[in-house]
This record gives sequence, C-alpha cells and structure tokens, in this order.
Amino acid sequence: MKELSFLIVPDSFKDCMDAEQVGECLEKGVKKVFPKASTMVIPMADGGEGTVNSIVKACKGNILNCEVLDPLGRPSVGFIGVIDDGETAIIEMAAASGIEKLSLHERNPWITSTFGTGQLIKKALDIGCRKIVIGIGGSATNDGGIGMAKALGAQFLNKDNNEIGEGGGAISDLYLIDVSNIDKRLLNVEIIAATDVVSPLTGPQGAACVFSPQKGADKAMVTLLDANMNHLANKVREYINIDVNNMPGAGAAGGLGAGLVAFTGASLKPGLKTIVELTGLEKQIKEHTVIFTAEGKVDNQTSSGKTPVGIARIAKKYKKPVFVFGGSVTDETKELYRNGISSVIPISRQPVDLNTSFKYAPLWLEKAAEELCLSLNVGMLLNLHRNT
Amino acid sequence: MKELSFLIVPDSFKDCMDAEQVGECLEKGVKKVFPKASTMVIPMADGGEGTVNSIVKACKGNILNCEVLDPLGRPSVGFIGVIDDGETAIIEMAAASGIEKLSLHERNPWITSTFGTGQLIKKALDIGCRKIVIGIGGSATNDGGIGMAKALGAQFLNKDNNEIGEGGGAISDLYLIDVSNIDKRLLNVEIIAATDVVSPLTGPQGAACVFSPQKGADKAMVTLLDANMNHLANKVREYINIDVNNMPGAGAAGGLGAGLVAFTGASLKPGLKTIVELTGLEKQIKEHTVIFTAEGKVDNQTSSGKTPVGIARIAKKYKKPVFVFGGSVTDETKELYRNGISSVIPISRQPVDLNTSFKYAPLWLEKAAEELCLSLNVGMLLNLHRNT
Repeated sequence: MKELSFLIVPDSFKDCMDAEQVGECLEKGVKKVFPKASTMVIPMADGGEGTVNSIVKACKGNILNCEVLDPLGRPSVGFIGVIDDGETAIIEMAAASGIEKLSLHERNPWITSTFGTGQLIKKALDIGCRKIVIGIGGSATNDGGIGMAKALGAQFLNKDNNEIGEGGGAISDLYLIDVSNIDKRLLNVEIIAATDVVSPLTGPQGAACVFSPQKGADKAMVTLLDANMNHLANKVREYINIDVNNMPGAGAAGGLGAGLVAFTGASLKPGLKTIVELTGLEKQIKEHTVIFTAEGKVDNQTSSGKTPVGIARIAKKYKKPVFVFGGSVTDETKELYRNGISSVIPISRQPVDLNTSFKYAPLWLEKAAEELCLSLNVGMLLNLHRNT
Repeated sequence: MKELSFLIVPDSFKDCMDAEQVGECLEKGVKKVFPKASTMVIPMADGGEGTVNSIVKACKGNILNCEVLDPLGRPSVGFIGVIDDGETAIIEMAAASGIEKLSLHERNPWITSTFGTGQLIKKALDIGCRKIVIGIGGSATNDGGIGMAKALGAQFLNKDNNEIGEGGGAISDLYLIDVSNIDKRLLNVEIIAATDVVSPLTGPQGAACVFSPQKGADKAMVTLLDANMNHLANKVREYINIDVNNMPGAGAAGGLGAGLVAFTGASLKPGLKTIVELTGLEKQIKEHTVIFTAEGKVDNQTSSGKTPVGIARIAKKYKKPVFVFGGSVTDETKELYRNGISSVIPISRQPVDLNTSFKYAPLWLEKAAEELCLSLNVGMLLNLHRNT
C-alpha cells in the first residue's frame, strides 16, 4: 500500500521556458487534481544553461557568485554551485563564457575566450572542492579551452615566445604549449566535463563546422577555425601526448571538451547521466509512484541524450509509469513506448502558430498535467475485471 | 466485476470529418491499447446533415431513396431512414432542401423552397410510418415551410386566388392559407421536428436575421425576408389560430420549424435529446464502463445543444467517466467538469495552422484515444492507498 506521489523531472522547453518553470507548471496541474499528493520537481539539464541550478536545487546546495571575465574579456559576474558539504562544485561554462553573455552583434568565435570558465574552476579550487563537474554547453567560444587553461596557469606561446591572443583565431600562431605552471591543485581533484554533445574536435562533425556558425562565424571563418582546432590537436599531441582529436565530446563547447581533457585531466561524461547520478535520481524514481517528464519537442529519437528516454529507461527498471509532456509531439510513438514511456501528452490545445504556442505553454502545461491526472484518477477508480 | 467497454458517441468535426469518421478514429485508438475491449460507436448529430445516418446506424434501420425536388425545383434524389420495423421514419430536411444541394452562386433564400422536404414526409406516409422525426438544420431556404406544406396539399393564395410562388420572397403576396386539402394521413402520425436552434421565427434573433445571410441573402434581402416571416406568422394566426412567432425553434431551417408546427401539427424538440431517445443512448451509457465523446471545438458553452455536455449530463447519473476529445479546446474547463465531464483531451500534437490540423485530425484523433487509454491503463494498474 503506497501513497500517490509524483516525481517531475522536466527538460527545458528551448527558447520558451527553463526546466524549473516547466516543472512548476506541471506541479501546479497535479496539485489541482491531487492536492494532497506529494510532489518533487528535479529540473533536468544537459550540461548547458540551468545545469547548476538544477543540481543545486535537487541536492540542496548553494550558489556562489564570483567575478570572471566574459567571452570578450570584460568584467562580469559568474557563479558556481556547491553541494555535498562543499566537497563538490558544479560549474556551467555558460555562466562565464556563454553565448547569452553577448548581444547578437558581439558574437564572434574568432576572439571569444573561455578564460572566465578557468576562473570558475579556480574558484572551486580556492574553496577546497575535491570534485568539479563542469557542464559544457551554450558556449560563445571556439578556443579549444585555451582561455580556460590560461586562467589556470598554462602558457600558449608563439614562435617568438610570446603569449598568443585570446580566441579561436589566434590559435594558428600557437607554437608551444607549456603546462609546467598550471595550478597544482588540479592534480588532486576529480574533474568531469558533462555534455551530451558527441562531436569530435575537428572535421565536418567537429566543433567549428557544427557549432561555430550559431556563434557568429561565417563560412570562411568556419574553415579557418576548423584548421586551428586541428593545429591545436597536433600541438596537444606534441606537448602533452594526448590524442584529443577523435574523442567523442572533444568538440563540445567550441573544443572546451578537448581542452579540459588535455589541460586539467578531466574525463568526459554524458550530461544526463552525470546529473542523474549527482541528483540521486534513480533513488527518487524508485520512491515515487508516477514520473512526469517533459521536453519542448518530443520526437522519435532515442539517443541517450534525450531526457525523456533517459528517464524512462531508469523508470522501466522499477516498473514506474512515465508520462512525457511535449510542446510538439511526433505522430510515431512506438520507439518511445519501447523505451519505457507509458504515454505521451501533447500540450497543444488549439491550432496555433509557434509563437502563440510559446505564449500559452505555461498554462497549457498546467492544463495538460491536470487533465492527465484526471484521466489517471478515472483509471484508478475503474475497478474492473481485466481481461482486456 | 465488469469488463472494460467503451461507448463512443462523437459529434462531427465541422468542415473536417463527419461524426461516424470521428468515431472510427477513436475506436481504432482504443483497440490499439485494449484489443479485446468491447467498443460501440454511436455517431451523434443535432438534426442537421448526418442525423439519418447516425440514427439508422445505431438502430439498425434502413435508408430508402426517393425522388424529390431540390431547393430550386430541380429533380434530385433524397432519402429517408426507417427504423422500428417501419414504424418510425427519420428525415433530415437537408436531404432534400439542404444548402449543400446548391453551388455557392445558386444560394438564394428569396427563391429556394422546402417543397422537397414535404415530398420526404409524403414518402414516410406512403410506407405507413406512424411516427416521423424530422431533423431541421442545414437548410438552403427561408420559406417558413410553405414549400413543404404545398407538397402535402396545403394552398397558399394571393389576393387574386392564385398560388403564390416558391421561396421566401413570394410570401409578401400571401393573402389566404387553405389547409383543407392537406394530406389527411398527417392526423394519425406523430411528427417531431428536431433542432437545437432556439431562434424565434422573426426579429433580430429570427430565421432571416441570423441564418439567411449564410444562405445567400444580402442586407436588404434579410430585412424583406424578416418582414415576410412576420407576415406569414400573422396569416398563420389568422387562418390556423396558432401563434408561431415567439415559439423557440420556430426560426430553425428558415422557418421550417414554424411551418411544421402550423401545417403538420409537429412538436419541436431539442435535437440531441431526440437522438438520445431514438438511439437508446441512456441505456447504452449505463451498460458501458467508459464514455468517449468528441467535438471539433470544445468550449465552455454548456447550452444543452452541445453534444459533450449533453452526454456528460446523462453519464453523470450513472457515474460513468466521460472523456471529450477536441480539435480545439478551451483553456477554461471548470464548467465542463461541473457538468460531468471527467477530462478533456485536445488532439493537437504540434503548433500548426487550422488547415494542417484538419489534414492531421484523423491520425491525431486515433493517437489521442490511444494515449488516453494508455493513461487509463496506468491508472488501473496503480494499486494505491488513496489518501489524496
């Protein structure tokens, strides 16, 4: 005999609502039908913006602000999350070096730097954390993590033994990498770079080709940035003896994935999996009766990076029902059911255009959760001999 | 201990799918989840097009074709339904005098006539029916039922003792009504005019003002038609001693409601209620475990004419859950729940325009039914102590 309890683990609705807001709307809908049911919201994130908030909220940690340089080297305020009584720091690179830090016309991966991300890592070292999880997504940069490593003491020199400039463009000048002065505290800390991006550092699926256009690169710049990433990979092989070129995820956040592995000894790990572990999500799933998840666009993809399917696979182990709410939902749902999703719930109520649907999304999410709970309730009240 | 059974009583999705198609899609979705569940589809109609088909299907009756004149007096093929071993005829006036019989440029309530509807009634009398139910909706006419009555032997004369012409325009010539030669078999037959329209014959809410514009009347014609309806009401009072002017529903089908009452002794009855009775719907609701209904646009209206609320009110008596599927669904659903609706299910899956939603409606209806059944199934499997 258990009581009805709802675990709400939504993703964000991209360009519309963050994961926490999505969770709040769903929770409101549940409470309308089951006012006494226990509910818990754990917003999901994939390593990009919102990652720190999600984990800190779920783990009852703290947020610390700190001064950083933004992608263009201007003073800015970033933050890190601290959980486990100060043992673990949660960082999202976007908090210092994210695309949202820049206005549209400022976006330019030729000159933007991850220096601020290095400052966030330094902050975590300063307060004595033994484990640092860095969500790498939403970057404004394509510098292969060189800026980040500089902030921690590494040196990137040209033929004249001078420091090269900031940004992806200056990497062609790189002649020598010297990590002898890098912060020694890094040696005693476990660093995890969390991302669901599986791009390698270079080539047609690499950092520059896939992601730099949305950061402001034109076609010519993409080609040069890709060549620079290749040059960086060669120099890393030469001076650090690591092959970061074909490592899946090395291309995440403009090559920050590669940089973290090469310069800080980080390991790359799937974003969703990392968050699931940090938040103790599996235990929570085990302890709740009904699981809600949500995503702006629910399609037939079953790549492990997609939150709903990731959640459903865990829930399946414990035979927990999982409902996926979506702003836009595929017609072909078999794959979703096969992965343990019980049913999908499109939130649209009327034929409207995309912008209008964004406006209504909060209300429609709440209504959809309410209506699903009403249907569940009917099911619970149907006391039937089941031969169907 | 009962088995799971679904009664599907959908309305049509106007301009998109008829009620029967809507029902088939919902049934398909149910069968995907509960292949062994019993299902029954009774398409609803409100007296307009589809009424005969719905009732004949639900009552296992027959359709008889017969020759009629269309609204412009051209030979055409109409039909009546026969149920109860030939005791009862079901007629929809639209089968002879409907707006769909005319192309757009032919629509003209000044000259269109209900003569063909009178021929359908005559057919029912010829085969010996004792009860005639006439759905009055979807008309092309505004003749106050004069054409219908002429077909049955009534005479409408001008000052020179000549028959007046067909159509709403000629009514200004009406001087004398003579029903002495009307078909005597009408006296021994119960006639019911079924409509959910509550308009009176004349005035701003009357037949001409509300409905004639969509039948092709311009502003000037509307005024003249309304005056003619008023003239007809006066003549009916003078020669038949009935006041049809303020009778709710008298204005339905261009005043055919008034004409049926005045010239054939019909009684006016709400359309949904009539169909509910004819199809034995209440008994079916009682015998099924879950009720599905549907409507193109589900809004907060609770006027008795709306199918979902009408169904829910009956289902409430027997504590049966009612789910309403809608192409477009209001955000404000409290009134619906208050009337006995368990939950509403918008079928939209994506932000799309109206035309696209029409195209996807069949598939989306099926998916929505499937997903609702999946949710119901989860509810049924949740074996919980309910303190929520």
